[in-house]
Amino acid sequence: MKLLYPTSLKLDVQSLEGFSVDLQPYDVKAAEIPAAHTDAEVLVTWTNSAANLRDAATRLTRLRWVQSLAAGPNDVLAAGFAPTVAVTTGSGLHDRTVAEHALALLLAAARRLDEMRLWQARRAWPGHLGGAQPDRPAGRFTTLRDARVLVWGYGNIARTLAPHLTALGARVTGVARTPGVRDGVEVHGEAALAELLSQTDALVMILPGSEATRDALNRERLALLPRHAWVVNVGRGTSIDEDALADALEKGDLAGAALDVFKTEPLPAESRLWDAPNLILSPHAAGGRPQDAEALIADNLRRFIAGQPLRNVVDV
Amino acid sequence: MKLLYPTSLKLDVQSLEGFSVDLQPYDVKAAEIPAAHTDAEVLVTWTNSAANLRDAATRLTRLRWVQSLAAGPNDVLAAGFAPTVAVTTGSGLHDRTVAEHALALLLAAARRLDEMRLWQARRAWPGHLGGAQPDRPAGRFTTLRDARVLVWGYGNIARTLAPHLTALGARVTGVARTPGVRDGVEVHGEAALAELLSQTDALVMILPGSEATRDALNRERLALLPRHAWVVNVGRGTSIDEDALADALEKGDLAGAALDVFKTEPLPAESRLWDAPNLILSPHAAGGRPQDAEALIADNLRRFIAGQPLRNVVDV
Repeated sequence: MKLLYPTSLKLDVQSLEGFSVDLQPYDVKAAEIPAAHTDAEVLVTWTNSAANLRDAATRLTRLRWVQSLAAGPNDVLAAGFAPTVAVTTGSGLHDRTVAEHALALLLAAARRLDEMRLWQARRAWPGHLGGAQPDRPAGRFTTLRDARVLVWGYGNIARTLAPHLTALGARVTGVARTPGVRDGVEVHGEAALAELLSQTDALVMILPGSEATRDALNRERLALLPRHAWVVNVGRGTSIDEDALADALEKGDLAGAALDVFKTEPLPAESRLWDAPNLILSPHAAGGRPQDAEALIADNLRRFIAGQPLRNVVDV
Repeated sequence: MKLLYPTSLKLDVQSLEGFSVDLQPYDVKAAEIPAAHTDAEVLVTWTNSAANLRDAATRLTRLRWVQSLAAGPNDVLAAGFAPTVAVTTGSGLHDRTVAEHALALLLAAARRLDEMRLWQARRAWPGHLGGAQPDRPAGRFTTLRDARVLVWGYGNIARTLAPHLTALGARVTGVARTPGVRDGVEVHGEAALAELLSQTDALVMILPGSEATRDALNRERLALLPRHAWVVNVGRGTSIDEDALADALEKGDLAGAALDVFKTEPLPAESRLWDAPNLILSPHAAGGRPQDAEALIADNLRRFIAGQPLRNVVDV
């Protein structure tokens, strides 16, 4: 049995040894999988070109399993692999990096680092942002202490993020398809959104990209947020109505937004978001660095050989 | 006995009641203390004008104790109060706010939010800062995970900050006048600085302002830091040789700096720091919001009346 692993990241291939598997590297940007490797049964993907994935879908006729290292393997799902090919995601490999970035964006928003930077470019001292300040004034988002943070899309990343927020004094609540209490955080169903949004100082969106989440944060829901609220998105850009968001920022109906993801990436030059006030723009930088991928691949490889259910299977 | 409390912050005065003390508000910006209040024995200060403090030092002839709410009450010490007047600081009231700001600056540095902001102002997508990235590459500061963070000035604020850094995966070490292990963090004496600086990814300075700390981070010590290191200062601006720092940034001998404090504040228009590359400038915004001041004042008031040693006494 042959497994193809990507050379687009540093993998400790020794950690994948010990199985009766032929481990072979491949170039994820090449238009074609080399003829010598079209007999592969397992393909590990990371930042493959669309052409490369389409070629793999067509020419790897013995393929039975694709292990993506992305949290949301939209590229693999779009490549046309046969329905008999199992697809597993890299869910879990990005929890810490995305959570750290979300924390960075939340703190930058609360502490107004973006506004400070604009003043700095003008060589002007933004005295109004420093010196004596009111402590936790009502109707402003100035610190995570006592801030009401709503995390929409309460999966692994949210569970990794929440303890950091709680330790800083935030009051964290979640929204997910399945309600319940997770690690002490109350997670509500989407039916509670209207009420929750109206009591939110900072909304963190970590929704996956799918038809079900398209424009989840639409004009109506944006209008439910307090005017002093911030929106942070480290999930998928498709989950926000960007025009409605730009309107809210321009009209001052929302205090600010920190976006790592966009409907179209790179963000087109003509996008209104570039000029929207109080918008922190990050170029899909939250994740992009899978951590401990070897452990996931090795565990799934063992399961695959043993005929056991794989982890992170995508239901197609 | 009369206590004058400042109206420059929102104090819950009810939390100071229950003692045989006449609690009276006063305007900290007025040039003079009202004649009716020159009999005060206790003065609580917060953002007083220099004139107001000088007046208090001259005309409050019965004064026995000044409770500052600042962590470093340099203004009170400079006002010329009689040596018989005890001065206590607001040490502890700023731990959480300063620690949060230091964390915000560290994360902004690691995640390059400052550079992203510059690209955003040009309406250009900084693709090199996003997408697939190497995970924890050697010789770069790109995440707090596994980063070696050295905190110089290991007091209350450092002890509040350290658990947040550790939770994000950082390896935290401290430097202080008194070495030892504090809450599991190894704190070394200044003799170890040379060795520690050379093994630092991010240096966080939380030194107080005094003659002993002037230019503590001088040219020689800056040169010991790796070229990829960042310097964060949330202590006092006097502790860094700003010219040496600007040189290091301009020459690329240091990856960046995030400064909340400066030798002269507001930072003068002619300062080189405005134009230094990879410098994040924050206008003395880390603290400035005393938290739970009432508990400190009430506890010290009780001690004062009972003739017990006060908390946070400044050794003059």
